[in-house]
Amino acid sequence: MEELSIIKVGGKVVEEAESLKKLLDDFSGVAGKKILVHGGGRSATALAAKLGIETKMVDGRRITDAPMLEVVTMVYGGLVNKNIVAGLQARKVNAIGLTGADMNVVVSDKRAKGNIDYGFVGDIRAVDANALDSLLSAGTIPVIAPLSHDGKGSMLNINADTMASTVAVALASKYKVNLVFCFELLGVMKDVNDPSSVINEITPSEYEKLKQDGVIEGGMIPKLDNSFEALRKGVSLVRITSANDFSRGDCGTALRL
Amino acid sequence: MEELSIIKVGGKVVEEAESLKKLLDDFSGVAGKKILVHGGGRSATALAAKLGIETKMVDGRRITDAPMLEVVTMVYGGLVNKNIVAGLQARKVNAIGLTGADMNVVVSDKRAKGNIDYGFVGDIRAVDANALDSLLSAGTIPVIAPLSHDGKGSMLNINADTMASTVAVALASKYKVNLVFCFELLGVMKDVNDPSSVINEITPSEYEKLKQDGVIEGGMIPKLDNSFEALRKGVSLVRITSANDFSRGDCGTALRL
Repeated sequence: MEELSIIKVGGKVVEEAESLKKLLDDFSGVAGKKILVHGGGRSATALAAKLGIETKMVDGRRITDAPMLEVVTMVYGGLVNKNIVAGLQARKVNAIGLTGADMNVVVSDKRAKGNIDYGFVGDIRAVDANALDSLLSAGTIPVIAPLSHDGKGSMLNINADTMASTVAVALASKYKVNLVFCFELLGVMKDVNDPSSVINEITPSEYEKLKQDGVIEGGMIPKLDNSFEALRKGVSLVRITSANDFSRGDCGTALRL
Repeated sequence: MEELSIIKVGGKVVEEAESLKKLLDDFSGVAGKKILVHGGGRSATALAAKLGIETKMVDGRRITDAPMLEVVTMVYGGLVNKNIVAGLQARKVNAIGLTGADMNVVVSDKRAKGNIDYGFVGDIRAVDANALDSLLSAGTIPVIAPLSHDGKGSMLNINADTMASTVAVALASKYKVNLVFCFELLGVMKDVNDPSSVINEITPSEYEKLKQDGVIEGGMIPKLDNSFEALRKGVSLVRITSANDFSRGDCGTALRL
């Protein structure tokens, strides 16, 4: 099976000129078929603030009312996505920017109101792996913004980690998928202040032990739960690493079943 | 030769919920292969104002400094484009939103400073008709924002009429192209206050006479010059009409050589 690299980069990396440049250089150097999934939350929060729109987050998720949906559609689908696409084109990478609405690649259901009304936030219903594969096979490189649509005319906000892992699972029937989550740390670390404490590899049983021992806690738990779920659904390898060296094959923390 | 309809709609039509809904219904009903090119100037001006960025226009063209480039990239490439794409997907039209940077479909040169520095405004260098044709042939419907890129990493603002006519000319080698410019009037009119005064058809010699007689003047002249140039470069028919009835084949004013 042919390999496919799916790289997810958070907002900070793509929102600052210096780190964006390095990311684009590194991503351009990734061999073979590849997809970039990006965030953009800091820029969305900054634009919202300038427009007098308050940003409300619950458990790291953005409450997306109608004015905030306009903000994220502008920032994720417009500003951040097109700057990445133009930057990749300058590096001779034939990128195409996509939201879930484009070619209907990712359709979602608006999240039902529970205790919290997240507003225009989507839970992914379906990914069109054939449409994405047709772009990949034509030599184009999808750059996916964390936006979907409901099939009824409304855009929906999607968590970028969830977008990346759901797309990875959908393409696992066609490719040997390596999913890379870039974030601000070097990997999963035993001690965030000690660069030598990166855990090179974690299996499900080791994960359980690391949780029991309190080594892995807080925000890392949903990230790793999500990663192991992607592995169980067919993704070959999940790597959690720094955006600074994701293009090195052995960086950060590898998760395997 | 197979027919291709290229419909250009201005900002006002796509920026108001009621007129956007009608446009999406009408565009969905257009038979055969088709492309939508949209504007978004009013929304860009409104967002810029909210952000304290002054809009400066010279001869109907927007001066696009760096902050304004961010605004138009957000509004044209994000908000307006994705709302159209989601609206078309809801109507089972498999739309894909594009700027010139996406798949490198339209690459441009930043306009040289003359008496006026337009800033990040592009003059189109090349349209990749093969890339657009590959999308059309796969059954997807391009929705093109008036944005291009310089091939060096920067987005560029493009006049939407120019985007539509340049794309039309590029595709004229592959299709019998009907280019439709929708605007706020019923067509080219002898008297803008008299709906019965729409001129049904104008040839180049008639155009010269109408200009001499002062019937066609002001902002209509560049629009018609641009249209006749597209015809001379291979477009089969240009129609100038109201967005309210562009889907009727015989509406407005037809320009032919």
